[in-house]
Amino acid sequence: MRATLMYGPGDVRVETVADPKLHEPTDAIVRVVQACVCGSDLHPYHSMDATTDGVPMGHEFIGVIEETGTEVSSLANGTLVIGTFSFQDNTCVFCRDGFQTACVNGGFFGSHDVPGAQAEYVRVPFAEGSLVPVPDVSELSDLIPSLLTLSDVYLTGYHGAHMGRVEKGTTVTVIGDGAVGLSAVLASRELGAEQIILMGRHTDRTDLGKEFGATDIVAERGDEGVAKVMDLTDGEGSHVVIEAVGHMPAYEQAYGVIRPGGIISRVGVPQYEKAPVGFGSIFGKNAAVTGGPAPVRAYIDDAIPLVLEGKINPGRVFDQSVALDQVADAYTKMDSREALKVLVKP
Amino acid sequence: MRATLMYGPGDVRVETVADPKLHEPTDAIVRVVQACVCGSDLHPYHSMDATTDGVPMGHEFIGVIEETGTEVSSLANGTLVIGTFSFQDNTCVFCRDGFQTACVNGGFFGSHDVPGAQAEYVRVPFAEGSLVPVPDVSELSDLIPSLLTLSDVYLTGYHGAHMGRVEKGTTVTVIGDGAVGLSAVLASRELGAEQIILMGRHTDRTDLGKEFGATDIVAERGDEGVAKVMDLTDGEGSHVVIEAVGHMPAYEQAYGVIRPGGIISRVGVPQYEKAPVGFGSIFGKNAAVTGGPAPVRAYIDDAIPLVLEGKINPGRVFDQSVALDQVADAYTKMDSREALKVLVKP
Repeated sequence: MRATLMYGPGDVRVETVADPKLHEPTDAIVRVVQACVCGSDLHPYHSMDATTDGVPMGHEFIGVIEETGTEVSSLANGTLVIGTFSFQDNTCVFCRDGFQTACVNGGFFGSHDVPGAQAEYVRVPFAEGSLVPVPDVSELSDLIPSLLTLSDVYLTGYHGAHMGRVEKGTTVTVIGDGAVGLSAVLASRELGAEQIILMGRHTDRTDLGKEFGATDIVAERGDEGVAKVMDLTDGEGSHVVIEAVGHMPAYEQAYGVIRPGGIISRVGVPQYEKAPVGFGSIFGKNAAVTGGPAPVRAYIDDAIPLVLEGKINPGRVFDQSVALDQVADAYTKMDSREALKVLVKP
Repeated sequence: MRATLMYGPGDVRVETVADPKLHEPTDAIVRVVQACVCGSDLHPYHSMDATTDGVPMGHEFIGVIEETGTEVSSLANGTLVIGTFSFQDNTCVFCRDGFQTACVNGGFFGSHDVPGAQAEYVRVPFAEGSLVPVPDVSELSDLIPSLLTLSDVYLTGYHGAHMGRVEKGTTVTVIGDGAVGLSAVLASRELGAEQIILMGRHTDRTDLGKEFGATDIVAERGDEGVAKVMDLTDGEGSHVVIEAVGHMPAYEQAYGVIRPGGIISRVGVPQYEKAPVGFGSIFGKNAAVTGGPAPVRAYIDDAIPLVLEGKINPGRVFDQSVALDQVADAYTKMDSREALKVLVKP
């Protein structure tokens, strides 16, 4: 089959590799209908160490069950399924807590053991925990892109809002106008936020942010951006900040605008290990820092009907699509901000 | 009057200073009945820059209203009052949120403008927001020490448990067997925690911790301490960690034992600004960091009846007392761990 591998910064190749096979009786093989490139894929695209083996890429996918192991009883061949970006048994103690990305048997796609989904087929461990059927939808449906966002991007934005405890009346500041940031705007609106300030400088993106529910756009960054948000919140700051970037300047903006007692919810994978958390940043104002890899499995059952009923249309974050063999173009365009998020159709 | 000033590390003096006077119509002058030394007073005792002026010390007190400004209508002279360790108007937007330590007009005792409470008298700004009457109690009552803990130490421990969302069934690990840590144990029991693991190595203190509700004591520190807590929690980690120390090794233990999706609640004033918050410490397991200076004003009305009815006895953290002129001894003994917490009786 054809599959995507990254060999070093800027070096993405589609190659012919062996078709995946069942390894465990709980596995399934899925034929990928649509996959996509994630903002987090751009981190290794910038800074990974070059490798001769290549790293299999892609962790967001919607597809059709092709084959299942002997212990998979609830997923019939031919069923359309959404894959969660992490795999998990969905039965362990942490899965039962609703933190499936911490599953004791789980892990992430994109290794040589569990390769990526920017490919024709993908082997899915713990198929019953990691694949969610959407039985009444055709793989040709216009709803496929929105359903695909439930694999990661929309529900990662939702996780940011959920962990920030966004509710009716909340003021939310979303830092980052990438697909996760825009998803966080949409999710905050769904949860009843009263004011949603989107910090971003790409007007095509912030325009979509407004359609998703942003009430204010702040294009400024750093101290200027902080001052603007403080102005917009009567000098009080934001109850919740959803940090959807992962770089230190975004975190600094977050604690700059957080209201006393507020919650900074991070869903951009931090590209730093240490950050300010002392009296002068968060402790003095009793602000909290939360967030992490989204347990999309905890949210997906509630989100699917919203997409099927047309109540949310998170698939609008896809502004371009490529065939699998052109996936390198998708990386180039997302990296240059020429594309917001690119669908990949094997 | 006599008052306590700190001039440099280890240099605490009681001196005769001018009696405090009303500055603002919202002020009150309180005659101090009992004050005490706080674990946080030991931070400058170790590391402050020497000064020729001296820093007025003390922020925990119970006393009697001596005189009030013209805008103070609800506090009659002669009323026994508990002072909150921060002063606040208790009416601003953040006070109404329940985060009075972020009051837009508030601040902390212990400056030349608003001197300290390890003194015969103390001027209290925003008296109606900062003093809570206990009208039916005599200043000679045996309950005074427990009521005094509502000025700071017990309700700081309570804040840790509250911000950590301790509830029925929660597993809590409390790091630090100082008076705040022991208070956090007692508060966690009050909130219904099922398992309370106290990390500390002073058996006289951890013995009191057991009486306050600790179910397990871990004397080990660092990796060994983390391993012990993981063993005690079936390898799952602790839902809540209350960090009642403020030094980096305590924070490192906190993220070492936190369960996925858990909350690290800090009430020890951090003696660091930057700390690990990336994928390897808290982000990867969706753990949160919360806490800050306790808004004791938000909790004190509910806590007073518990003390008056004998349901909690947080005053047991006081194991010694000194006259005001001997306050330097109190610092020495608390610093050497010879005393847990020392009452100061002017």
